[in-house]
Amino acid sequence: MKSFIEISSDSHFPLENLPYGVFSTANNQFPRIGVAIGDQILDLPSITSLFEKHVPELKNPASVLSQPSLNLFMSLGKPVWQATRKFLQYILSADTPELRDNHELRLKAFTPQKDATLHLPATIGDYTDFYASKEHATNVGSMFRGKDNALMPNWVHLPVGYHGRASSIVLSGANIKRPNGQRLSAKDQPPVFGPSLKLDYELEMAFFVGVGNELGEPISIEQAKNHIFGIVLLNDWSARDIQSWEYVPLGPFLGKNFGTSISPWVVTLEALEPFLVQGPQQVPPPLEYLQERGPSAYNINLEVKLKPSGSNDYKTITRSNLKYMYWSITQQLAHHTINGCNTRPGDLCGTGTISGQTDDSLGSLLEITWNGQNEIEFEAGVKRKFIEDGDEVVLTGYCQGDGHFIGFGECAGKILPNRAK
Amino acid sequence: MKSFIEISSDSHFPLENLPYGVFSTANNQFPRIGVAIGDQILDLPSITSLFEKHVPELKNPASVLSQPSLNLFMSLGKPVWQATRKFLQYILSADTPELRDNHELRLKAFTPQKDATLHLPATIGDYTDFYASKEHATNVGSMFRGKDNALMPNWVHLPVGYHGRASSIVLSGANIKRPNGQRLSAKDQPPVFGPSLKLDYELEMAFFVGVGNELGEPISIEQAKNHIFGIVLLNDWSARDIQSWEYVPLGPFLGKNFGTSISPWVVTLEALEPFLVQGPQQVPPPLEYLQERGPSAYNINLEVKLKPSGSNDYKTITRSNLKYMYWSITQQLAHHTINGCNTRPGDLCGTGTISGQTDDSLGSLLEITWNGQNEIEFEAGVKRKFIEDGDEVVLTGYCQGDGHFIGFGECAGKILPNRAK
Repeated sequence: MKSFIEISSDSHFPLENLPYGVFSTANNQFPRIGVAIGDQILDLPSITSLFEKHVPELKNPASVLSQPSLNLFMSLGKPVWQATRKFLQYILSADTPELRDNHELRLKAFTPQKDATLHLPATIGDYTDFYASKEHATNVGSMFRGKDNALMPNWVHLPVGYHGRASSIVLSGANIKRPNGQRLSAKDQPPVFGPSLKLDYELEMAFFVGVGNELGEPISIEQAKNHIFGIVLLNDWSARDIQSWEYVPLGPFLGKNFGTSISPWVVTLEALEPFLVQGPQQVPPPLEYLQERGPSAYNINLEVKLKPSGSNDYKTITRSNLKYMYWSITQQLAHHTINGCNTRPGDLCGTGTISGQTDDSLGSLLEITWNGQNEIEFEAGVKRKFIEDGDEVVLTGYCQGDGHFIGFGECAGKILPNRAK
Repeated sequence: MKSFIEISSDSHFPLENLPYGVFSTANNQFPRIGVAIGDQILDLPSITSLFEKHVPELKNPASVLSQPSLNLFMSLGKPVWQATRKFLQYILSADTPELRDNHELRLKAFTPQKDATLHLPATIGDYTDFYASKEHATNVGSMFRGKDNALMPNWVHLPVGYHGRASSIVLSGANIKRPNGQRLSAKDQPPVFGPSLKLDYELEMAFFVGVGNELGEPISIEQAKNHIFGIVLLNDWSARDIQSWEYVPLGPFLGKNFGTSISPWVVTLEALEPFLVQGPQQVPPPLEYLQERGPSAYNINLEVKLKPSGSNDYKTITRSNLKYMYWSITQQLAHHTINGCNTRPGDLCGTGTISGQTDDSLGSLLEITWNGQNEIEFEAGVKRKFIEDGDEVVLTGYCQGDGHFIGFGECAGKILPNRAK
C-alpha cells in the first residue's frame, strides 16, 4: 500500500494504520476529527464532499466529522467504520487522483502534526481499569499481601476490574502534579500527610467502547469486537504509598485518580486485525460467557522510557507486549456487561499494567525496583527507585507489519513538584 | 412562611425547601428545570421575565433554565444559588402579587407533579461512593472478614471511598433487572454462573458537586460547602454474592454497577442549613486537612420500606439518620480532592450505607438479616432474607422543621426477574 503522502519507513502512521484523533490548528481553533497519515493529519471535515460521494454509509458527514470528539462517529458502528476506512485508504492511495491532484483541497486537507494541537479523542463517560496481566497481579500481590496471597482465588476465573476516574484523564503531554495524601511512615504509627514519595507509572493500553449497550442487556463475547472502536496507550500514574494505605477494602482511589494519561491517536481494531494472536492458555478454562472462539490477543510491542530530571537522555526501562495479557479485551467487555451494566460510546477500559515474565518486561517501577528495594541506574550515576520531580515518562507501542509499523505514537508526561499545604 | 400555592402540612416541599429537578410534560416534551412546591412544579423557564427583573446575578436565565440538566446552573456558584432561592421564596410567597395574581402566567408556570415526567437532575460525569458510616463498615467488615478485621486501620483516618459507575445511575421509579454473575456456591469450589441470589438495597444519600475544581487544585474543607450544590437519596443496589467473590483486591464492580437509583429532587445545602448538627466525635482526631470548624452533620431522618411481590403493603424495615454518619460530606469532598483530583459540576458522591447503632436502623438487608442468617417477616407469613423478583423498595428522607418538613421525596425501585443465558 502506497500513499501520495510521503511516509518514512519508521512512521507509526502508514496507510495501513489510519488512527483517528481530534485536533485544532492556529487557523481553525475548533477541535475536529482528523486521521494521522505519516507526519500529517488529514482534516476529515475538509473533505466532506468526498465523503458524500464515496461513503453513503455515513449520513451527514459534515456534522459527524466536525464534532469536537469521536463519540458520535464511534456510535455509528462497524459498517460505518469499515466503509470509512476503505474510503480513506482509497482516497489517500498513490493511485487515486481525486485528492492527490487537487492542490487547493490538499492545502486545506493536510496539517503537519507538529503544527496541530491535539485534544482528548473522546468525551469519556466512564473509565474502567482492569487488572488483566497475570505477571503484574502476581508481582503486586506478592509485595502487598505476601507470596501466598498474591493471586486471589477469583483472579483466574474473571478479569478483575474496578471503576476509575474519568475527569482526570488527560492527553499525552500534559504535566502531572505530584499528589499529596496520607501514607504510613512506620508500621503501627498513625499516617502522615505530604507529597507521595512513591510515584509510579503503569504501562497499560485501553480500548474505547464504540457502540454501547442498554442497561440490562449484556454484550456477548462473540459480539464484543463489534462494540470496540479502537485502542490507545494509557499511563495509569500511581502513588504507591497513598494506594497501599487507602485501598483496603474498596480498592484504589486517591492513589490513582490524580491523573491518567492517554495517547492521542485511536488505532482501530480493523487496523490491528492482522496482529491477532493466541493469548496465554487459560487454566482453568473460564466460564462459558468468557470463552473465546479464536485468537483474541494482539501482538503489540510496548516500551517505556524515562528521562530523569536534568538529563537529556531517555532510557528504555520496560519492553513488554500486549499479547502477554491473560484476559483479552473482548473478555473484559463481555465480563463488564454480563450483569447488565451499560456502556456508552467513548467509555474507556484500561487493561491494567502489562508485565511479562522477564525482568526487562515489568510494566511499573513498583515491580522493577521491587517497591524501592532496588534502583534503576541512568547515566552519570543518576538512580531511581520511583519517579522524581521533573522526570519524564514516555510510553510507546507498535505492531511490526510487513515493512511497516502500525504504531500508537507516544503517551508522554512529566511530573511537577507539589508542596503539602 | 406561606405560599399562595396550597401546601399540605405533610408535604416534603414547602416554601422552606424548594428543591430543583428536571421535568417534562405532555405539552412540552423538552426536559427543563423546575422547582417542587407542594404537589406542584414551578416551571422556571416559564418565568424567565421575572428572573430577568429580580435576579441580576443570573445572566441569561432563558438559556440556563431551559437546559435539560442542572449542570450549568450548578456551575454558577453559591451567590447565584442564594439569589435564586431568595427570589423563589419571594415570588412564591402569599404576600407577593406578581405571580400570584397573574392567572395567565400561573397556568403556564405550574404543573402538578403527578402529570410530569421527571428526569435525572444532572448529567453525572463521575460517581464516587464513600463508606462513611462506622456502624455499616463495622457490620459488613465483621461478616466479610471477621470481627477482628472488621474496621481496617485506615478507616478512622480517612473517608474510604471508591469510584462507581455513572452510566447505570437511574431515576427513582426505574425497574432494575436482577444481575447475572459469578458467585461461589461452596467453599473451595469453582464459581458458578447465574442470577444473583443475594440482591440487596443500600440506604444512602448523595451530594452533587456544583462548582468543580481544576486538576491539581484541592478543595479545602473550609471551601467544600461552597462547592456542594445539594443532596438526594440514593439506593446502591448490591448483589452480595457477586460482590463478595469479585471485590478482592480492587473493590466492588459488577456487584454494584448494574443499577443505582437516585431521587429526582435535589435539596440544596441552603435549605438544609437549619438542620446542621454536630456529628459523631472523631477519635483519633483526623489530620488537619480533614478537621471541621463547626457542625457538619445533617439531621435527616431516613426510612426504607419494602413491599414483597404480590403484597399490597409496604413495611418499614430501616429507620436511620444521616447524622449518624462518621465522615461528613465536606470531609468527603476535601479528601476526594486533596490529591488534586478534579471534580466537575454534576459529579455525584454517595455517602455509603447509613446505619445506626440499633437493630432497626441498619441500612441494608445484609446487615438486618446478617447475610441471610435471619429473616424479616412481612404480612401473611411472607419472609425475606434478600430481595426477590417483583419486590419494591422505597427510600425516603426528611428533616423535621418547625411545623413543616424539608423532604427528599422518594427513591423507589422494583426488581425484575432475569435468566442466565
